[in-house]
Amino acid sequence: MPSILIDETHDPARESWVESANGHGDFPIQNLPLGVFSRGGDAPRGGVAIGDMILDLGKLALSGLLKGPAADAAEAAAAPSLNAMLALGAEPRRALRRCISALLAKDAPERAQVEPMLVPMAEVQMHLPAHVSDYTDFYVGIHHATNIGSLFRPDNPLLPNYKHVPIGYHGRASTIRPTGAEVIRPQGQTKAPTADAPSFGPIAKLDYELELGVWMATGNDLGTRIPIGEALDHVAGLTLLNDWSARDIQAWEYQPLGPFLAKNFLTTVSPWLITLEALAPFRRAQPPRPEGDPQPLPYLWDEADLREGAFSLDLEVYLSSAAMREKHIAPMRLSHGPASNMYWTIAQMVAHHASNGCQMQTGDLLGSGTISGPEHGSQGSLMEITRNGKDAVELPTGETRTFLEDGDELSLAGRFTADGAVSIGFGQCTGVVAPAKV
Amino acid sequence: MPSILIDETHDPARESWVESANGHGDFPIQNLPLGVFSRGGDAPRGGVAIGDMILDLGKLALSGLLKGPAADAAEAAAAPSLNAMLALGAEPRRALRRCISALLAKDAPERAQVEPMLVPMAEVQMHLPAHVSDYTDFYVGIHHATNIGSLFRPDNPLLPNYKHVPIGYHGRASTIRPTGAEVIRPQGQTKAPTADAPSFGPIAKLDYELELGVWMATGNDLGTRIPIGEALDHVAGLTLLNDWSARDIQAWEYQPLGPFLAKNFLTTVSPWLITLEALAPFRRAQPPRPEGDPQPLPYLWDEADLREGAFSLDLEVYLSSAAMREKHIAPMRLSHGPASNMYWTIAQMVAHHASNGCQMQTGDLLGSGTISGPEHGSQGSLMEITRNGKDAVELPTGETRTFLEDGDELSLAGRFTADGAVSIGFGQCTGVVAPAKV
Repeated sequence: MPSILIDETHDPARESWVESANGHGDFPIQNLPLGVFSRGGDAPRGGVAIGDMILDLGKLALSGLLKGPAADAAEAAAAPSLNAMLALGAEPRRALRRCISALLAKDAPERAQVEPMLVPMAEVQMHLPAHVSDYTDFYVGIHHATNIGSLFRPDNPLLPNYKHVPIGYHGRASTIRPTGAEVIRPQGQTKAPTADAPSFGPIAKLDYELELGVWMATGNDLGTRIPIGEALDHVAGLTLLNDWSARDIQAWEYQPLGPFLAKNFLTTVSPWLITLEALAPFRRAQPPRPEGDPQPLPYLWDEADLREGAFSLDLEVYLSSAAMREKHIAPMRLSHGPASNMYWTIAQMVAHHASNGCQMQTGDLLGSGTISGPEHGSQGSLMEITRNGKDAVELPTGETRTFLEDGDELSLAGRFTADGAVSIGFGQCTGVVAPAKV
Repeated sequence: MPSILIDETHDPARESWVESANGHGDFPIQNLPLGVFSRGGDAPRGGVAIGDMILDLGKLALSGLLKGPAADAAEAAAAPSLNAMLALGAEPRRALRRCISALLAKDAPERAQVEPMLVPMAEVQMHLPAHVSDYTDFYVGIHHATNIGSLFRPDNPLLPNYKHVPIGYHGRASTIRPTGAEVIRPQGQTKAPTADAPSFGPIAKLDYELELGVWMATGNDLGTRIPIGEALDHVAGLTLLNDWSARDIQAWEYQPLGPFLAKNFLTTVSPWLITLEALAPFRRAQPPRPEGDPQPLPYLWDEADLREGAFSLDLEVYLSSAAMREKHIAPMRLSHGPASNMYWTIAQMVAHHASNGCQMQTGDLLGSGTISGPEHGSQGSLMEITRNGKDAVELPTGETRTFLEDGDELSLAGRFTADGAVSIGFGQCTGVVAPAKV
C-alpha cells in the first residue's frame, strides 16, 4: 500500500474545460505543475500549467475563490519566485492543487471567473520556479558512473565507495537557467594527453548530461539531520536537468577536488516543477540491488522508500543540428531509457546530504547525476555514446557528431506513465549551442 | 609604482576621537572594515568597526552628513546584508571610506553628531556581511596541497595540473556562519582502511583549515569573462575563513567528485570585511615562482598582479581546550606563517573562475584553500601538523590532540603589517566544538 495520497486530482476520467489540456502530453489536468512566468514587461509571478495555457496564481490569489491553506499558497506564489510558497510545506501545496483541479475541471461552475486568469504559454517567458539556494549534483546513475569511470580510470571504473555512499558534489547556483537559455560554448584551459603543455581557448568536447532535478521545499536546522523516512516531506517535486559539461576541461582539472569549470558554465532545467503530489500514481518500488551488493547503512535504509522511492519515468534525448532544422528534419533521438537506473533514491540523496548536519533550504536544487542505461542507446551523455569521441554518431543529414557543435539543439524529455493513470511530462528542457565569445 | 590608491585614510599619523581605536590591533582608523550587526531585537544593518565600537551606517545614512556616492553607499548599507552596497562597486565604497575616516578623525568637527551613532561592539551580535550567493573554495596553498597530497596519495602528492590551473571546487553557501557559531561535531559515513565495511556515527577526525576568504563586490554576465587585469575591481575585500573538515568522511567520500559532506557542515568567517582600500599599503609582489615552474597562461598572467597581487599578512591559529580555559591558561599557538605561501593570487582565482563564462555575483565568497608554510609550525590544519593523527600535539595541560575534541576552541588570526603603515587585522574567527547531536 503506497503511503502517498492518490485522490480525485489523479482521476483519469477528469478532463478540463481548457480543451488543450485534454490529451496533452505534458500538462493534462492531472499534472498541474508550478512555474514562474512573465508576459511583456509584467513582473514574474507563479503560475500553473494547464494544456497550452498558464493559470496566473497572482490573479487567482486575488480572486476570492480560495480559502485557508490553498489561499495562503496562492498568495505566496504571487511573487517572482516560488520560494515563499514552497517554504509553506506540503499541505498548502496540496490544498492549492485540489482547489485548482476542481476549478479547471470540466463543468466547474467557476469557469467564467477563472478563464480570464489564463495566459497562453506561447506568449510568456518562463523563469526559474525558485531562487536556487544551493545546487548539489549527485552521481546516482550507476551505469553512467561505470561508463564514465571506465573512460577516466579504465582500471578502476566504479570506486569502492560507490555502493555505500550516494556520491555528490556541490555545483554552481548562479548559472542555472530555465529551458531556452543559449549554451555559449565555454573557453577553458585544457591539455590533450599528447600535448606538452595546456592551452586556453574554446573547448572542443561540449557535452550534455541527462539528469533529474529535485527541488527542495523545506530544509533543516544546521547541525540536525533529516531522517530518511521524512526526506520526501522536504521535497517539492522534480524537473529535468541538463548538466552541460566540457569534457576536455574536466579531464584536465578534476583531480583532486572534482569537476569545477567543466560544469559550472550553465545548467539548464525544465521550468515546470512537477509536484510530488502529481507524481503519486507513478511511484514504484526501487529496483532490488544486484545480488551481493551491500545493504545501505540504517541512515539510508527505509522500507517505505524501497517500496515507492522510484518513479515510472521514461527519459529521452534529442539532437538536431542547424542543418537538420533548416531542412525541417525532425530531431534525432540520441538515447532513451527508464529512470530506474538510479542506484540511490531521492530520499536517500536528501537523507545523506543532511546526515552530517548540513543545512538544506527551500530552493535547494539537487541533480541526480547522469541517468544512463546499461546498453547502447540508453546512455545519457555523448561522452558515453561516442566513447569519448571514438565512435561518431551519424545524423540524418550525413553530418557526424562526437560532441556538440555550434548550432546544435539538444533537448531532454521525460514522461511518467502508469496503468490506470493519465501520463504526464515535464515540458521543454532545451538549449542551442552558440559559438564561444572569444 | 603600485596602481592602488594610498591616500589620507592610510596616514599613519591619523588618530581617532574614538580612543579605543588608537593602537587597536585590528580596527584602528586606518582599517574601517564593513560588517552587519544587530543589537537586541533590532534589524541587522551595516556598520563600520572603529576600535571597540561600531559606527551604525543606518544612522549615518540618515544624518545628512554624507553627499553623493558616499551617501548612496551608506544608504545601501542600511540593510540586513551589504549586497546592495557591494554591488555599487568600488567608487562609492571608497567615497564612504574617505568620509568616515574624516568623520572619525581626531578633531573632526562633526564628532558630536557622529558620537551617538556608535554602538559598543560588546553589545552586538555580528552577522555575515553579505548574503553568500555562491561559495567556491580554491586550493592555492601549495605547501598544503603537497602535504595533504602526500597523505592521501603518497606516490603522487602534487598533481600535474596544479602549477597550471588554480584548482578550486564549489562549496556549500548555506552553512557559512560568522565567528562564534557552534561547531557541532558532524556525524557521517566513514570507513577505516582496515574495516570491512563503512559505519555511521560521530566523526573522529574533526579538523580546521586556515584560509583567506574573498568577498566579491560585482560580477560578470553569463558567458563573458573577467580579464585578469580587471579582476580586483570586482573584489570587495578579505576575511578569515575556517573550512572545518571531517577528515575521516573526506578520505572515504572524496573520490571521484571531491569533498562534499567532509566540508559542508560549517564554514566560519570573521564577520568584518577588510576592504581592498584598507589593504592598499599591504600589497606586495607575488613571490617569484620556483625555477622551472611553468609560466601561467596569458589569461592568468598580468604584470601588475605580479607586482602587487600578494599581501603582507601574517596568519596564526590558536587552540584552547575546555580544561585550558577552565584553568585560565592562554590559548596555545598551533601555527603561524605568512600568507605568501599562496601559489595563485586572488586576481588569478577570480579570472580563472570566470574564464569559462561562469557568472560571478555580488556576495560570492571565495576561499583560498588552506595556507600552510613549508616547515613544521606553519601548517594550516591538524591533518598536516599531526600527519593524519600520527604525531599528537601536547597542550600546556598535558592533554594531547591529534584532531579536535569536544570543548576545544579554535581561533584564526591575521595581521597586515608594512613599514610606514599602521597594522590592521580581521577581528575574531573562532569556534568551539560541541558534541554531535546523535
